[in-house]
Amino acid sequence: MVDEPAVLRENKNQPPRGFPDAEFETRLSKAQALMQAENFDALLLTTDENIRYFSGFHTQFFQSPTRPWFLIVPKSGKPIAIIPGIGAECMARTWIEDIRTWSSPHPTDDGLSLLADALKSCAASTGRVGMPMGAETALRMPLVDFDRLRADLDGIRFSDATGILKKLRMRKSEREIEKIAHACRGAGDAFAAVPDWLAAGMVDTEIFRAFKIDCLRRGVDDVSYLVGGAGPDGYNDIIAPPSGRPVEPGDILILDTGCIYDGYFCDFDRNFAIGSASDLSRSAYETVYRATDAGLSAARPGATCADLFHAMQDVLEKGGALGNDVGRLGHGLGMQMTEWPSHTGFDETVLVPGMVLTLEPGMSYAPGKMMVHEENIVIREDGCELLTRRAAPELPIVN
Amino acid sequence: MVDEPAVLRENKNQPPRGFPDAEFETRLSKAQALMQAENFDALLLTTDENIRYFSGFHTQFFQSPTRPWFLIVPKSGKPIAIIPGIGAECMARTWIEDIRTWSSPHPTDDGLSLLADALKSCAASTGRVGMPMGAETALRMPLVDFDRLRADLDGIRFSDATGILKKLRMRKSEREIEKIAHACRGAGDAFAAVPDWLAAGMVDTEIFRAFKIDCLRRGVDDVSYLVGGAGPDGYNDIIAPPSGRPVEPGDILILDTGCIYDGYFCDFDRNFAIGSASDLSRSAYETVYRATDAGLSAARPGATCADLFHAMQDVLEKGGALGNDVGRLGHGLGMQMTEWPSHTGFDETVLVPGMVLTLEPGMSYAPGKMMVHEENIVIREDGCELLTRRAAPELPIVN
Repeated sequence: MVDEPAVLRENKNQPPRGFPDAEFETRLSKAQALMQAENFDALLLTTDENIRYFSGFHTQFFQSPTRPWFLIVPKSGKPIAIIPGIGAECMARTWIEDIRTWSSPHPTDDGLSLLADALKSCAASTGRVGMPMGAETALRMPLVDFDRLRADLDGIRFSDATGILKKLRMRKSEREIEKIAHACRGAGDAFAAVPDWLAAGMVDTEIFRAFKIDCLRRGVDDVSYLVGGAGPDGYNDIIAPPSGRPVEPGDILILDTGCIYDGYFCDFDRNFAIGSASDLSRSAYETVYRATDAGLSAARPGATCADLFHAMQDVLEKGGALGNDVGRLGHGLGMQMTEWPSHTGFDETVLVPGMVLTLEPGMSYAPGKMMVHEENIVIREDGCELLTRRAAPELPIVN
Repeated sequence: MVDEPAVLRENKNQPPRGFPDAEFETRLSKAQALMQAENFDALLLTTDENIRYFSGFHTQFFQSPTRPWFLIVPKSGKPIAIIPGIGAECMARTWIEDIRTWSSPHPTDDGLSLLADALKSCAASTGRVGMPMGAETALRMPLVDFDRLRADLDGIRFSDATGILKKLRMRKSEREIEKIAHACRGAGDAFAAVPDWLAAGMVDTEIFRAFKIDCLRRGVDDVSYLVGGAGPDGYNDIIAPPSGRPVEPGDILILDTGCIYDGYFCDFDRNFAIGSASDLSRSAYETVYRATDAGLSAARPGATCADLFHAMQDVLEKGGALGNDVGRLGHGLGMQMTEWPSHTGFDETVLVPGMVLTLEPGMSYAPGKMMVHEENIVIREDGCELLTRRAAPELPIVN
């Protein structure tokens, strides 16, 4: 440990943390324009990422499920924070001015009366309050409390406003893109170094831990997500934690990581063959690699997620894919490791500059054997830009 | 990195991963007894921890908000998993046999019809389906989907079953306690080493990163949570991420971490004075230390959380506490960093052997200056056992 700080001090070319107030002003004014178009008096937000998006309030404390947190975006004026007292100091450092607190946890009124008062005042006009209620959203407060609020608030109706959040959050600012790119660089440097230390006989728990440590050393804040699988000439699971099994000669190992810098994720994977690989697995690797190439070519403003899907899926099918249990071939990326949109045949979201996406073609190439490849990109005016350093074109063999 | 595996291989005396099937059988039969007493036909579970509690399904993939996951606990027989295809392989390695999957994400039916069919069949008797809807719970599926399910399922009523989950999960098995204790040891060893490398001039982002790396080296799987604050002779925020400010002579630094081993958290903090500390801050430290002593003495079967609260609060008040924005003086601990119960004046939960708790007395001792202390314990037949190595009785001064 003694020389650790010296190592860490080398990572100085990192993007600035946080955002200037102007960025929150832009987000707010865009939201209010969309709210006006849909005739919402207010938005009610309850989750880490949605609250952070409009306030800049950034804490890992959302991992504690005990207390609810609320942010109201009114149709005009700045957002109103209604939060537990424990967060007052942290919220006061953001651009939010109207901060209302209570002592939480509370046995009978965990913020509900404060919230009801604020909603009555903000939604006095049409009574329409928007909330994220659709795909990829969740309500982060006790359901009994929300049911009570919904029943008791005469004249206020809660409607789905997922579309507004989706439209805003899908398109990232340059500052957001920089943070994701920095996470990609840290994880990418760690992936590039894996062949220097990975060897047959290492238990997968050790591999995971060594990789996490290296990502941290290389400048990410957190390795929030690391899953993977290994098996003889192929793996059959890409969401499992390490098992305690040693990797063996002839295994293929996948590591898939979501590293965080300043609250923004990268999300990509790399594959490694231990000692040797069969023609079948090398061919599958080349297929998912070429599918990614097809995705890179198709990713430009005006194309849809369905276009991206078909471009990649076509290569996978011609390469002998037996199927894919993942359900899509990539997705959006930002404050959450997966965000809207999804590269499926049914997602007609039109790509626009600033969208940060994963390309994640995966296939079964034999019973119980999968190959999944993933890169991160940002849509630019004239196509797309890779945020990850492109994987090797041939399955890397680690000796 | 080259010698990293050698370092990691030293951590061999770690508890076994996972649980034997018998542990899930016990959890299930206890749940079914409680369900019978409350006349529930089934429980519907949607969150990582509740699904894992009954199935053993363990993945970081819940960080992706895209797909809903469902587990039904019927009044008799084993749980039924209704999950996206991407999880089928991982679920098949658990003791669950009835695994129903669909290709997710889906544009119009993201598991809903499978779920409705299963509920109709499981809840045909009384139509009463229990869900966690109360304090410290959340619904992890799109609200529009749940509203639709609730409206369409004739004869089925969803009622709050928080009490059942709370009662079961609050009392840990020895295997669960071992995992928490292992996380406590790893973080405790890292805390003990902080004075070896912490020094004035280090930027807090470097401090956080160095601490995370050391925790991983010492055998935890993840440093999921690390927050802290530092300021001249005291900090005023305990939930903030690092700011980029260097710690300076005369600062007091708190690090509060939730490290994970095999899906179970520790949650405790340590305070460090940089170079020197005032009489006021040393006195505040001694007060929260003595408050913890009072909590340790009061923590035994038959006492309530309110008893623990009053035992600690009494010491804090006599020690000159100006207040506490945290809202409680500790809480339960397990698969989540904070779980039921809460040490507040209103929580009359009776302590029983096997409960894993934090004792977390905190106080303001001057305007804008807090001191928070935290230890982890398990309630035993004759009192309590510390899972953390007790903090130093006097505020540690780091030179």
